[in-house]
Amino acid sequence: MSFNDLTINEYTDKLASKAPVPGGGGASALCGAVGAALASMVCNLTIGKKKFAEFEGELNEILNETQRLQAELLRLSDEDAKVFEPLAKAYSLPKETQEEIEFKAQVMEKVLHNATIVPLNIMRANAQVIRLHYRLKDISSMLVISDVGCGAMAAKSALLSASLNVFINTKAMANREEAEKFNKEANELIAECSQKADETFEFVKNKLR
Amino acid sequence: MSFNDLTINEYTDKLASKAPVPGGGGASALCGAVGAALASMVCNLTIGKKKFAEFEGELNEILNETQRLQAELLRLSDEDAKVFEPLAKAYSLPKETQEEIEFKAQVMEKVLHNATIVPLNIMRANAQVIRLHYRLKDISSMLVISDVGCGAMAAKSALLSASLNVFINTKAMANREEAEKFNKEANELIAECSQKADETFEFVKNKLR
Repeated sequence: MSFNDLTINEYTDKLASKAPVPGGGGASALCGAVGAALASMVCNLTIGKKKFAEFEGELNEILNETQRLQAELLRLSDEDAKVFEPLAKAYSLPKETQEEIEFKAQVMEKVLHNATIVPLNIMRANAQVIRLHYRLKDISSMLVISDVGCGAMAAKSALLSASLNVFINTKAMANREEAEKFNKEANELIAECSQKADETFEFVKNKLR
Repeated sequence: MSFNDLTINEYTDKLASKAPVPGGGGASALCGAVGAALASMVCNLTIGKKKFAEFEGELNEILNETQRLQAELLRLSDEDAKVFEPLAKAYSLPKETQEEIEFKAQVMEKVLHNATIVPLNIMRANAQVIRLHYRLKDISSMLVISDVGCGAMAAKSALLSASLNVFINTKAMANREEAEKFNKEANELIAECSQKADETFEFVKNKLR
């Protein structure tokens, strides 16, 4: 079962409920997919316009990429739920005997790794969505320029939200070298793309004045 | 037909397409509904915990409010599509004769008013979602504190995205007094709640370290 087969009414009700999944991670992937879809819409409504004929090749390439990113983010929304269950189970393993302690540590490390990779992939995909909106702001029809601003904001919120799940899980990892590598990448993606998203939004806002 | 009866796969595909609706405004309402649903989830998973017993009354009140806001934002997502069509039609009315010019101006003013009220209501609802996350950060279980950060970010992106549609439409309004009143409220909501959302996110991020 994929959450993406639920209607929006069903999904938001499930999100609001006590059910352990979907949670903030999956929801951030969904907001990212919305950001990617808005980029596709902008391409679809700009391609074919005479004024932007010179960018048609580039717009088609961006469209291919945003369609791929939308599908990937929806897939990651489901993945996020799949890595949550083993993580919750591992946290509740007993640690009375030495054997149990060692076994739990081993299991934890593996599930923490997986539970970090998924939100990190959500961050990577959203960073790319932001970079594409950053470019689209200069080559899209004024009729859809506001959608560039909306898409950049949706992807930024997803980028930041997903980072929280990266940081929660790296904090608990025993392998500090890997943990620091993940944190470094997460912080770099935020530094680069949070600003790019804000610049995109301000650019759009000023265009509309 | 409501967009909220579409599956997430169907909705994001429709958003990505050339179809005039849904667009950035409706998508922002959806992200806001996700932010409200996350607040409800936080309440649902904190209510009943001994440590937060003293806040149970307040948490139940917040839950009532976030459930109402989720439903309202989903309703506004549909409304946004409903006000778009008459707006697009009005823009394409002829203005050759004096009579046509006057008629168009009259129609435009009415549809612009409606097309501004909807995104302004999306902003108002998201501002309230942010205020509730701002409070929830201090009274929710550590197990769901990251979801408070995610919810605040989703609502902030929706608040800012919806503001673009307010500004587009007020710019075209002939009634400058009303236009400035709408702009003032939009700017005040951004000034107050954009910062509250950022503070919530930073608070959560620091809690997780």
